[in-house]
Amino acid sequence: MAESAPCVLVVSAHAGDFVWRAGGAIAAATMRGERAVVACLSYGERGESASQWLQGKSLDEIKAIRRGEAEAAASALGAEIEFLDLGDYPLTESAEAVARLVDVYRRVQPTVVLTHPLSDPYNGDHPAAARMALQARILAQAIGVANSDGAFPSQSEIIGAPPVFFFEPHQPEQSDFKPNVLLDITAAFPRKRAAMECLPAQQHMWSYYTDLAVRRGVQVKRNAGPNLGLAHETMGEAYMRYFPQVTDVLT
Amino acid sequence: MAESAPCVLVVSAHAGDFVWRAGGAIAAATMRGERAVVACLSYGERGESASQWLQGKSLDEIKAIRRGEAEAAASALGAEIEFLDLGDYPLTESAEAVARLVDVYRRVQPTVVLTHPLSDPYNGDHPAAARMALQARILAQAIGVANSDGAFPSQSEIIGAPPVFFFEPHQPEQSDFKPNVLLDITAAFPRKRAAMECLPAQQHMWSYYTDLAVRRGVQVKRNAGPNLGLAHETMGEAYMRYFPQVTDVLT
Amino acid sequence: MAESAPCVLVVSAHAGDFVWRAGGAIAAATMRGERAVVACLSYGERGESASQWLQGKSLDEIKAIRRGEAEAAASALGAEIEFLDLGDYPLTESAEAVARLVDVYRRVQPTVVLTHPLSDPYNGDHPAAARMALQARILAQAIGVANSDGAFPSQSEIIGAPPVFFFEPHQPEQSDFKPNVLLDITAAFPRKRAAMECLPAQQHMWSYYTDLAVRRGVQVKRNAGPNLGLAHETMGEAYMRYFPQVTDVLT
Amino acid sequence: MAESAPCVLVVSAHAGDFVWRAGGAIAAATMRGERAVVACLSYGERGESASQWLQGKSLDEIKAIRRGEAEAAASALGAEIEFLDLGDYPLTESAEAVARLVDVYRRVQPTVVLTHPLSDPYNGDHPAAARMALQARILAQAIGVANSDGAFPSQSEIIGAPPVFFFEPHQPEQSDFKPNVLLDITAAFPRKRAAMECLPAQQHMWSYYTDLAVRRGVQVKRNAGPNLGLAHETMGEAYMRYFPQVTDVLT
Amino acid sequence: MAESAPCVLVVSAHAGDFVWRAGGAIAAATMRGERAVVACLSYGERGESASQWLQGKSLDEIKAIRRGEAEAAASALGAEIEFLDLGDYPLTESAEAVARLVDVYRRVQPTVVLTHPLSDPYNGDHPAAARMALQARILAQAIGVANSDGAFPSQSEIIGAPPVFFFEPHQPEQSDFKPNVLLDITAAFPRKRAAMECLPAQQHMWSYYTDLAVRRGVQVKRNAGPNLGLAHETMGEAYMRYFPQVTDVLT
Amino acid sequence: MAESAPCVLVVSAHAGDFVWRAGGAIAAATMRGERAVVACLSYGERGESASQWLQGKSLDEIKAIRRGEAEAAASALGAEIEFLDLGDYPLTESAEAVARLVDVYRRVQPTVVLTHPLSDPYNGDHPAAARMALQARILAQAIGVANSDGAFPSQSEIIGAPPVFFFEPHQPEQSDFKPNVLLDITAAFPRKRAAMECLPAQQHMWSYYTDLAVRRGVQVKRNAGPNLGLAHETMGEAYMRYFPQVTDVLT
Repeated sequence: MAESAPCVLVVSAHAGDFVWRAGGAIAAATMRGERAVVACLSYGERGESASQWLQGKSLDEIKAIRRGEAEAAASALGAEIEFLDLGDYPLTESAEAVARLVDVYRRVQPTVVLTHPLSDPYNGDHPAAARMALQARILAQAIGVANSDGAFPSQSEIIGAPPVFFFEPHQPEQSDFKPNVLLDITAAFPRKRAAMECLPAQQHMWSYYTDLAVRRGVQVKRNAGPNLGLAHETMGEAYMRYFPQVTDVLT
Repeated sequence: MAESAPCVLVVSAHAGDFVWRAGGAIAAATMRGERAVVACLSYGERGESASQWLQGKSLDEIKAIRRGEAEAAASALGAEIEFLDLGDYPLTESAEAVARLVDVYRRVQPTVVLTHPLSDPYNGDHPAAARMALQARILAQAIGVANSDGAFPSQSEIIGAPPVFFFEPHQPEQSDFKPNVLLDITAAFPRKRAAMECLPAQQHMWSYYTDLAVRRGVQVKRNAGPNLGLAHETMGEAYMRYFPQVTDVLT
Repeated sequence: MAESAPCVLVVSAHAGDFVWRAGGAIAAATMRGERAVVACLSYGERGESASQWLQGKSLDEIKAIRRGEAEAAASALGAEIEFLDLGDYPLTESAEAVARLVDVYRRVQPTVVLTHPLSDPYNGDHPAAARMALQARILAQAIGVANSDGAFPSQSEIIGAPPVFFFEPHQPEQSDFKPNVLLDITAAFPRKRAAMECLPAQQHMWSYYTDLAVRRGVQVKRNAGPNLGLAHETMGEAYMRYFPQVTDVLT
Repeated sequence: MAESAPCVLVVSAHAGDFVWRAGGAIAAATMRGERAVVACLSYGERGESASQWLQGKSLDEIKAIRRGEAEAAASALGAEIEFLDLGDYPLTESAEAVARLVDVYRRVQPTVVLTHPLSDPYNGDHPAAARMALQARILAQAIGVANSDGAFPSQSEIIGAPPVFFFEPHQPEQSDFKPNVLLDITAAFPRKRAAMECLPAQQHMWSYYTDLAVRRGVQVKRNAGPNLGLAHETMGEAYMRYFPQVTDVLT
Repeated sequence: MAESAPCVLVVSAHAGDFVWRAGGAIAAATMRGERAVVACLSYGERGESASQWLQGKSLDEIKAIRRGEAEAAASALGAEIEFLDLGDYPLTESAEAVARLVDVYRRVQPTVVLTHPLSDPYNGDHPAAARMALQARILAQAIGVANSDGAFPSQSEIIGAPPVFFFEPHQPEQSDFKPNVLLDITAAFPRKRAAMECLPAQQHMWSYYTDLAVRRGVQVKRNAGPNLGLAHETMGEAYMRYFPQVTDVLT
Repeated sequence: MAESAPCVLVVSAHAGDFVWRAGGAIAAATMRGERAVVACLSYGERGESASQWLQGKSLDEIKAIRRGEAEAAASALGAEIEFLDLGDYPLTESAEAVARLVDVYRRVQPTVVLTHPLSDPYNGDHPAAARMALQARILAQAIGVANSDGAFPSQSEIIGAPPVFFFEPHQPEQSDFKPNVLLDITAAFPRKRAAMECLPAQQHMWSYYTDLAVRRGVQVKRNAGPNLGLAHETMGEAYMRYFPQVTDVLT
């Protein structure tokens, strides 16, 4: 595996998920000069575009609209985005989809992975995305697993063991989402807000996720150690680390 | 609360626990020039001194022996140690004991706290120590809770919200101990080994806990991200973070 | 979505499940004048018809027998029944099967859904039925998900968010079935018993599930509030509510 | 036991808890003409009155201030309140305190009980209050358990089995709080807000708990069945039902 | 520790518990010629003697009646019984009570321990009994823990590590009771029934626990391996093993 | 079903798993004169053969090498082995693969089944193997489920309900592996070590799994009852029993 520069890979089931749920982490990374890549598995064209269906738009029109919005939002966050167009509602797991994700991992060489949690009683696409993201991460580590073009990877193409963080689902307690990482996104929040505003059909979500950032920000302050001196306007995002943290300092 | 320098407080039920279970973290801290303080709640005089009882020693003799060993081990780790002499088997929770721990917290101003996990079917003293450590940590934060001398604390005496890590129990799976932090203690391990060797009555534990450090070291490597370049002789300790991690970077 | 009249939809893996496990709830609904529809995914022809196989019957004969029994039992409960004939042992999840269930949901417009719990170490068909029932419920809510004939649904065809209740598996503790709803089926029990007696090959189950109704009835009484005045012959069924209860009164 | 009229008993660790966490349920009950009684175990004088300690007030002054505020808030909710003055930080469990709660139960004859959840890593007083509330509820049911004056209860004095609901802790996921009841408090919210405004020292909490009511209101709508027609301004409170719901209709 | 002959120790909160919940295991042991000792912590005089209180009996009368019944039941099972008379509702944990149980362990030298599970939302005495039984078992192993007369134990007085089994609570799912051992009590059942009939005030329980034995017997058959040849009239009891099973054959 | 002689069936995802994780149990069985059969689902050719890929070997060469090693290891354990060659990384679940396993079950008539646990965040093939092993076990019990050649089984071909034990994953705590059976493999360990040495490419694993046997051996001793008299060189393996143990003696 290569000695990779810091790079966050976000595996998002639908076109909006990476904005609402991980926009702060993404913007914080790009503001540090790091690379961020969003792998958007579907446009959310069937399950998360009700207003456009009610307007009588066609499937292709809806996909184009959603793609455009997602590109704008990614841009506002400073991130690259690529679309796998796997379809939604349901997002179906397949060997082919996983193989394409393996290629993404090997090309991007992420040092951090963000995706959905493994449980969500309200949306089956989210856990499906997470399962594929996790399976592809393991396969991408193995030198005996070919790329999707059939060629075996070089030693620099396989990946290491990047940590995985699950971002927050819509109803966290019902999804067994117990945050074990609270991320301070205060400085990055204006970019997250700008990215949210690239999604005009879901304007009611702008304030919903701003309120959530305030709520998680309160928890950032409550859980912070004595030396952090966090001010009251702290904004936060909640994450659930899937593998143990590896460190040489307990803090 | 004061702007504290880094300082680890270890709340240990018995005289040996801090060595076997957290010696690496303690030595790593002191090797970085940080302060480490062990609050040793009992000498383990009844429950963990079988060989001395079989030799016919008296309770006072055993307590003196164990105290001496623990002082030597703490010294080998570069740590301070104080003894609360609360008795063991059972270690009994009491308002008085908690009040004394509140004083310790306020005096020491820890930035990190290490203690036992909350469940251990093989030893009731360990969860009792953890419960008291956690309760005292909360009480020490409150300006309305008096010190044990009856005086109310100054603003610089109350503490912040230091993170708490549970160290590894003897039978982790039976104690619902699922590590979420793997600490690399490779550089600190020689001091941990030296501290273990200050406990001559438990010589069979020296190799047991050396083997465990190797085992946890393998997991450090397995879970490490791609840039760490960990060598094969990595030694580790496992911890369970009790409160969410607060951070501004996901790594 | 339509303003639906009360209607219970029961998604049953095999021909007998809805009788043993939810017959009381079904009969209680129809006795209140409500509609009840059973979607029977298979006849249980391979996995739950051992005595007929031992008699040398053919697959088609067994399916016909089981269908007839299920129709009689549904009738005894006052319920409609439809058969999807998806095969059992194993009941295989597929996009096609889910699409057919989406049609059922949209046609039936259930206000309550009953199905198997998500775990059952003794029978893989039961969780498979539950997963399909849950997935279809979500897809049926989305106006962008076409009916199985390819036409997009009207606004009155999509469904709302009916509550889902898991009925009791054969070995509840092993299936992580922790009832959070105890249903008083005293008045409905004679109809449940009559429905059970439509299944002659499983006569030993009649008393088994009568005893279970007594057992759950004891728990109904134990958990009832002080004003219910339940008599001693209370009969019960246990359920596990999957989504939070929405209410404007706590009782 | 008596045939009790509807009556909600709220067991609150500190003077403010019942307002922030259950004010909507209380106001909704009293607006229906039901009785509501708050048993306030302490004033929160040590642990939740930092600003008053910083102003140099004495313990007695702080208790008086907190008592006055709690009386005003209870009044705004239409509820009665009584103070057990058991002390806080820590709130200590004792046989005497439980015996006094047994008296409260028998005198009040609650048909619903609200209290704290059993886990809260941030505040040990909350679980202590819950444990005492639960233990007293069981003891109050037993005719062989004397009242605190030593007299044995009459049959009309013992209580039945009122359902228990845990209200929401400050950090729900960290407290293993998985709501299984979402209460619509839209109509009651103005009274809850008025009650919150009786607690001037915690003005920052007014907006925090208003935002939370919006958030839980969104979940009320998301989880509601198809016939509820809930408007967008729905306000909610989350609860965790401790014992199974007993019912004769699944809805 | 001594080379003990097989001996089962049953720690029972109230006078009836050992009969309803573990009578089969006890009778099976004594029918094999093994010793069985019941340590009965209270008579259940306050919490489980409602009918006698309603008859106007005094506390002392009730205790005498319950003691007599328990002695008769123990005798029917072939077991010894001793009464600690610690009081019930609540059964209060104390160092003194645990010390007396340590004496019992050392005197009896059990090779198997049966007691209540650690959770029971309907009865706080049951978990209290379990906690004391478990704590005393650990203390009794330590040569540094004195007997209650102050003398330190000899090597033959301390105990080993007898396995602990929790017997079935009244509402198993609500008490997180997931049986991992199903005991065939077919041969012992007549003695269990005879013991139940020594408790005339709870006659309705005779059939309740007979039905439960049938139910658990069905599960014995369902879970049995292919060589057991269990007949249809199998009777069973369910247990939850607390510590890992130690064995040299997997069966 | 037949009255089977004792026979252990091991369902192993890759060629090495049965050696590292269950070699002791297998050797212990064959040393007792029992039959042991390993069903090896893949050779681990892609995911667990990195060194051979780095040497430039072809897929077929690697499969042949791994097959030879596994045959040698099985022979050292006294076990038969058959290869299903289903492919790895990913090991894909399919109806065909399960059908072939059904044939294996019916042919082998196992009285004990060993396989992987159901969760492993580090390797998706392991849970896939377990799910197929469990599903096939259920299907093989049903007389209505045909063999893979289309013929329906005779009564002697279907199987009973053999107990299932999950063997230890690489990182047990992360895989929710809580051992409830500790197997003493002291006498069998030399054969396990010999089998490990048949896998030369993974020489670093020999000491790793020897150390693990020592560690589990310490737990065997700690959890053993007082009469076992286990010596200090005890070696162990940890297992998780999936279904309840059926027994007529509690030990």
